[in-house]
Formats: sequence, structure tokens, C-alpha cells
Amino acid sequence: MTSPSSSTVSPHTKSDLDLLFEFLRFRSISTNPDKASEMHSCADWLRRLLNEGGFTAEVAETGGHPAVLAKGPHVPGRKTVLIYGHYDVQPADPLNLWTSPPFDPVIRNKRIFARGATDNKGQILAHILGAIRLLQAEGSLPVNLVFLIEGEEEVGSVNLAEFIRARRNELRCDIIAVSDTGMVAQGWPTLTQSLRGIAAMEVIVRGPSMDLHSGVFGGAVANPAAALVRLLSLLHDDEGRVAVPGFYDDVTPPTPAERAALAALPLDEVDFQRETGALLLTGEPGFTTLERIGIRPTAEINGLTSGYQGEGTKTVLPAQASAKLTFRLVPCQKPSRILDLVAIHLRNHQPASVEMEIVRGHSGMPYVMDTRSPWCAAALRALEQVFGRPPALMREGGSIPIVQTFRELLGCETLLLGLAAPDCRAHAPDENFPLENFEAGIRLHQILLRELADA
Amino acid sequence: MTSPSSSTVSPHTKSDLDLLFEFLRFRSISTNPDKASEMHSCADWLRRLLNEGGFTAEVAETGGHPAVLAKGPHVPGRKTVLIYGHYDVQPADPLNLWTSPPFDPVIRNKRIFARGATDNKGQILAHILGAIRLLQAEGSLPVNLVFLIEGEEEVGSVNLAEFIRARRNELRCDIIAVSDTGMVAQGWPTLTQSLRGIAAMEVIVRGPSMDLHSGVFGGAVANPAAALVRLLSLLHDDEGRVAVPGFYDDVTPPTPAERAALAALPLDEVDFQRETGALLLTGEPGFTTLERIGIRPTAEINGLTSGYQGEGTKTVLPAQASAKLTFRLVPCQKPSRILDLVAIHLRNHQPASVEMEIVRGHSGMPYVMDTRSPWCAAALRALEQVFGRPPALMREGGSIPIVQTFRELLGCETLLLGLAAPDCRAHAPDENFPLENFEAGIRLHQILLRELADA
Repeated sequence: MTSPSSSTVSPHTKSDLDLLFEFLRFRSISTNPDKASEMHSCADWLRRLLNEGGFTAEVAETGGHPAVLAKGPHVPGRKTVLIYGHYDVQPADPLNLWTSPPFDPVIRNKRIFARGATDNKGQILAHILGAIRLLQAEGSLPVNLVFLIEGEEEVGSVNLAEFIRARRNELRCDIIAVSDTGMVAQGWPTLTQSLRGIAAMEVIVRGPSMDLHSGVFGGAVANPAAALVRLLSLLHDDEGRVAVPGFYDDVTPPTPAERAALAALPLDEVDFQRETGALLLTGEPGFTTLERIGIRPTAEINGLTSGYQGEGTKTVLPAQASAKLTFRLVPCQKPSRILDLVAIHLRNHQPASVEMEIVRGHSGMPYVMDTRSPWCAAALRALEQVFGRPPALMREGGSIPIVQTFRELLGCETLLLGLAAPDCRAHAPDENFPLENFEAGIRLHQILLRELADA
Repeated sequence: MTSPSSSTVSPHTKSDLDLLFEFLRFRSISTNPDKASEMHSCADWLRRLLNEGGFTAEVAETGGHPAVLAKGPHVPGRKTVLIYGHYDVQPADPLNLWTSPPFDPVIRNKRIFARGATDNKGQILAHILGAIRLLQAEGSLPVNLVFLIEGEEEVGSVNLAEFIRARRNELRCDIIAVSDTGMVAQGWPTLTQSLRGIAAMEVIVRGPSMDLHSGVFGGAVANPAAALVRLLSLLHDDEGRVAVPGFYDDVTPPTPAERAALAALPLDEVDFQRETGALLLTGEPGFTTLERIGIRPTAEINGLTSGYQGEGTKTVLPAQASAKLTFRLVPCQKPSRILDLVAIHLRNHQPASVEMEIVRGHSGMPYVMDTRSPWCAAALRALEQVFGRPPALMREGGSIPIVQTFRELLGCETLLLGLAAPDCRAHAPDENFPLENFEAGIRLHQILLRELADA
């Protein structure tokens, strides 16, 4: 398939859906080095669309994949709103699990199926088209509008903080809005009020200087894999709480009102469980599923490696064993403090017979919106107007480190107005985006700008 | 590198060392399915060598990798000796830890470095060349000699018992000799009087039907890696004993005389520790290093696999986690009983939130020789003549399940005359075989045949 990079990108002659299909056909997989030119074509397509639609747009180099930066007509005295999104997508493999090809969008059951349909092309394009259609209809926008659409969200936004620092003056704004989160139920308007933080580490236990014959030496030399599993078994107690001393010390306990709000959210636990394929839902005792994901911290093993991993048996006593760990954090836990506590806990139980190295990885602070702010109020009004019911206030389990970067570098808050359906299959085969969410997203953008202008 | 499979294999024109180097160049990794043709080439090389050396040799199909079966000139009334060995080797990875390529043998510090140098190509070729050179020099052998050299020792000799059953008449013998064990110290002649048994299993813990986003789902869905490490942590108690209920029930306690004999062996613990690279020697409380290896059973984790294992972080909640386990057994433990006990122990602690599959692997009974037999006396005399000192009686930690099969199917005992140096690095990078052990092995074979003829 060739990219539609050289055709006209005219919002005047093409329908919203035609434009989304064009956008979805780009194989803009940021983690894939041989997709660099396709990434650039996709960014340029956005630039031309925004230019045709009345914005001043550029493909801006970042040191990695480029970002698209676009500004609407500037009217002094109006508030400035920045819309952030990303045009890069996750890899599409395993391809054989897709019902239709991931970069050949189709509509089935009133949903658009394609890689990136929800994450994030469908959602960011709804904002772009909302603005362009409003400008077409009315000749102006109620706010000064800036789009920042990056190409490295799926690889950790590695160059974005530096880009924002360098272009800080052009990105100055009053409020930021992002649609890259989920709806608590399909069609149920949702404002995400918090994100968990993250702290990552790798634990490497070393024993003999090479893999030994487990018969010849086994019994007389400590096995690093056995030492590692004993250490990792100390991360949780028998009931599923994190067992690292001090781990919960800084956790702000939920208020009865917060717990009641979460309990009122329309999460379908049966659907949720079915979606994961797990036998049952489980976790920290005394908390509901939404609480376990939204307001409680976790310790997760993301990977284990040791010794022989091929077919059959190899009787080695492995030289080393390692684990990748991440901790999801909630207010007011601090990533560095948590990594310290885990390291101390592991060191306290480290047997004398093995060495242990602890490598700290990336981290991000937990994020919480002040839902009483005028910005939140404006966003909630816009959501209710579009969807016809009071929005849910969601606490997301994932982390979007960029919102913390915005707070630090631009000094302003981020509204997370998710348009993803619970079964959108982001990052998985058969990713999809309901047509009604795409259309609602376009209307939401227009109403949001008006509400923010008055906030 | 191409295999030397089509060149001449003549013991008349080639030196012992040239022949060993040719043998070592075959990448005869039995566990690796794409090495089937290389395995066959290696077997055929042995056949041609033995044929050229005066034996009637064939590459015999077994259902798996072929075995090489060869017979020397038959003289009625003479005793029949069977020499068993194997031409298959362990995988060579991790390749980056080898000083020189594993299938490109070189000599450094009077040692031959290559995968299989000790285990078992160097040792079995010493026997073959000992016989061929004796036949060249004297025109006859003091016994009727049979070689059985299999290609599946490193994958549990899965087809050998059936092969022996089918060819039992041709394999009938009075005594079997094997060099696939260690010397208690380099140059110290050693007869291994016992081997540990083995029982292998793989434990696979399954949770969600795919890797989940550990932020979005973490805390509400059980993590199979966390479940696995908790289960595996129950294999041992805090002091290093195996904690599987009933595990030690059938273990025959050592007599004071046996403990005294082990204590008298010239094991240099400092050397032993240095060789492993471990920080210290450790193991079951109340036993010495040689006892822990020779007469006490163990539970070892040979490999761990789960989730993301590449560079950096990937925030997955893994769909599954698995471990490879082996148990080394001593008289009178039975492999099937031990696997039952472990499975019961794991099932008793399996959380309801994950599925667990237990796959049983290969197994072998522990083996003990009667050291007062005339065969043992002959072997000890041969060892003393070659090495110039009284041999040590060793209890090996490794397992050679085939000796149990020989006992059952051929009704005779196996002499274990190890030529492996303590620091031979069998199964590990930089496996090596001292030149003097290769040469001593050739002499040992010749003297052994004479001693066994008179036994």
C-alpha cells in the first residue's frame, strides 16, 4: 500500500471520515526504525490538513520523529488552549489476530477498525476537525488554539520535554486538553481526574561467574534464580498487599466521598474480566476493582529472566537471574522514595551467597486534577452537553508522564477528556473506534472551546 | 564453518589430536531441531573412524538422533566390554562468554577449549583411539569390545532404552565402562561409585489471555510472574533445605563410614569455590560440600521466563510465567514420587486467580556401585597404573540415567572412570579438556581392557 502523502488534503472537499481513513493508512509506527519516512509523511499530511483548514502549521524537528505544531488565528485578549495528541501508533503485530488489515481501515458494526483508530488518530483528528469545521462555519474560534501533535508518545515521548522547553514561548497557554484516555462505559462521558505515577527498577541477582552444571555443583552453590524468587516473593503479603515496609506510608487515603464516587461509576466487572481473559478479578483486600486500579498503588513484575528458556531441559545452575519491576503510585507517593524503600527491603533479605544489583529506571509522579477548578467545570459542562448525561470522574491506573511535564514546563493543568470505548483494544489486534465517538469528539471540541473561553 | 563430514577419517594418517579437533567441530547440539543433519554427519564421522580403525561400525537409527554401534574383532571365550559415550553436546550459548568460538577448538595453557571437549567427545574419543591404537599395534584386543555412542545424552537419552531393548543381543556384555564423570582433583584418578538421579519439570502459570497494560489493569488482575515467584519460593526453607513435604522421606542416611570416606577426599574447597565464581559455598545445613553434592538431594531452578526481557522497561502484566526445575535424587528416592510431591506442594499453594500447568520432563534413578566387585577392583588397578596413585571413590552430583537402564536391560554394572578436570566447565562457556587427560584416557583404555580381561 502506498501512502496518500502526495494527494491533496482538503477539508473543503473531503468528508471527516475520508480524512480519518487517510490518516489511518499511514503506518506511523514510531518504534520501528524503518518507518521514519512514513512518520514524516504522516506528520506532513497533518500539516497540510491544518494549513488548508486555516491554521499556521509546521512539521517541527524534535531530535526524533517530528512533531506537528499548529496555531489558529490569534486574537489578543482571548484565552489560549493547547490540544495535545500523537500521530504515532503501536506496532500492529501479531498481524494474524486482526480481522482486517490494521492499516486498511474498514467500518464494521458502526466501528472503525484500524491500528490507531482510537489511540490516538481518531481522537486527535476529532479535535482537529472540530476546530477546522468551526472555523469554516464561523470564520473564527472562541479561543486562541494551538495543536501539539507528537510522533513519539508510544516510545515514551523521549524528545518532547526538550522540545517544549525550546519552544516554550510558542506553547504558552492557559489550559491543555487531551483525548487519550478511556470512557468508563461506551457513550458515558468521562473526565479523568487522576493518573497513577510510576517507578521502575531492574533487580539482577548474580551467583556463580557462569552457568554451572546443576548436578555437579547443585546443592553446594547458591542458585541466583532461587534467591531472586525468594526476594520477589517478599514484594507482596499472602493477601495481595505490597509488603515493602513503608510502601503505603505516604498514600493519601480516599475520602468516603471519593470512594462513593468511584462506586457509582458504571464499570461492568464481568465485561472487564472477560476482556482481560483472567480467571477472576483480585487484588488488595478491602478495595474494589476501580479503587485497586485508580487510587491504590501496586508492585508489578513485568519480566523475569534466568538460565535456560528454550525447549526441554538444560540442567544449569544459572549465573544470574533478573526481574523488571514497576510500581504504580498514587498521591502522595514519590517515585524516588518508593525505589529507596524497595531497595532497602530487598537488601535486608539478600542472602550472603549472592550479589544483587538494583538498576533504577524511569519514573513519573502521580497526577491529580483539582476538579473544583473553573477549567474542570467547563470541561464537565461540555461533556454533559455532548453526551446528554453528567460525566463520570475517572481515576486511571495508567501513567501519562507528559501531563506532569506540561505542569512543570508550561505551568498549567491538563484536562483528560477520553473518547476511547472500554473495548477499543488500544495496543491490541482489532483496535477500533466507534463512529459515534468520532462524531461526538468533533462536537465536543467545539463546545469545549466555547466553555473554556467563558471559564 | 562447514562440517568436515566428507573428508577422510583415517586414524592411520591423522594424529589423535587432529581427530579430536575434527570431532569437536561438529555442532552436534541434540536439543536443537535444526541440527539434525549435523548430528547425522557427526555420527557418520564416528562410523568411518571406527571402520577405518578395524571395527565393524554402523550408524543405527533410534527414532531420534542416531547412535553409533561398533564391534571389534570377536574372539570366543573372551570377556565382552561395552564402552558407552555420547557425541551430542549441550547448546553453546551464551556465545559472548566464550574466549574462542565453541566449535572452533583451540589449545590454550595445555587445554583443549571447545563445546564437548570434556563432555563427552574428548573422553569417548580417548577410549576409541585407545582401542584403535592398541589394535594397530598388536593386531588384537584382550577383550571383545563394543562401542555404543549415542546422540541424545544431553536430552535425556529418550530413545536409548528402546534401542537397547531392540538390540539387546548385540549389546550383551560382561561389564560396561563410561568416562563421563569428574576427577576429584586434576590428575587424581577417580572412580565414581554413585550418581544422583534426576527428575525434571516445567511449571507454567497463566493469567490474562494476553500481556496486559500494567497501569490500566495492574492491581485488579493477578500477575502470573508474581504468582510463580511465590510458588517457587516455597521450594526451600529459610535455611536451604528443600521444603516440599515428604521430599526427604525416602533418602537413605549416610553411614559414619561413608561420611568419613567423603571427608577424606582431596577436595580443595577454596579451589572449588574459586572455580564456580560464587561468593561462598552454601547449602543444606549440617552437611559438607561433598555431601551436599554427592549424597543429598536438591531442588534447582534451571530457568525463568516471563513478560518483557529486553532493554529498558515495558509495562506489561504478563500473560504467563514459567520455570524449569530439576531435582537431583539420592538412594532411595524415586523420580515419579518426587514429581508427585512437588506437584502436590505447588497445587496446595496455587492461588485461585491463575492457572498452572505442570509438564513432567525426563527422569533417572539414582545409581550406586558395589565397590567390592572384581570389576571395580580391576578398574581401580587400571586407574592407579595410569595416574600413579590410589584412586578416589567419588560420589557424583550429576546424573547418568543410562547406567540404570544398563543395569535393568543388560543386567550388568557400569564403571565410571571420569577424566573430567574439576574446572572443565562442562555445559558452560569455555568448556575445556586438559591435553594430559586426553592422553591419559587413551592409555587408561588400553590398561583397563587388560585388567578387565583378567578380572
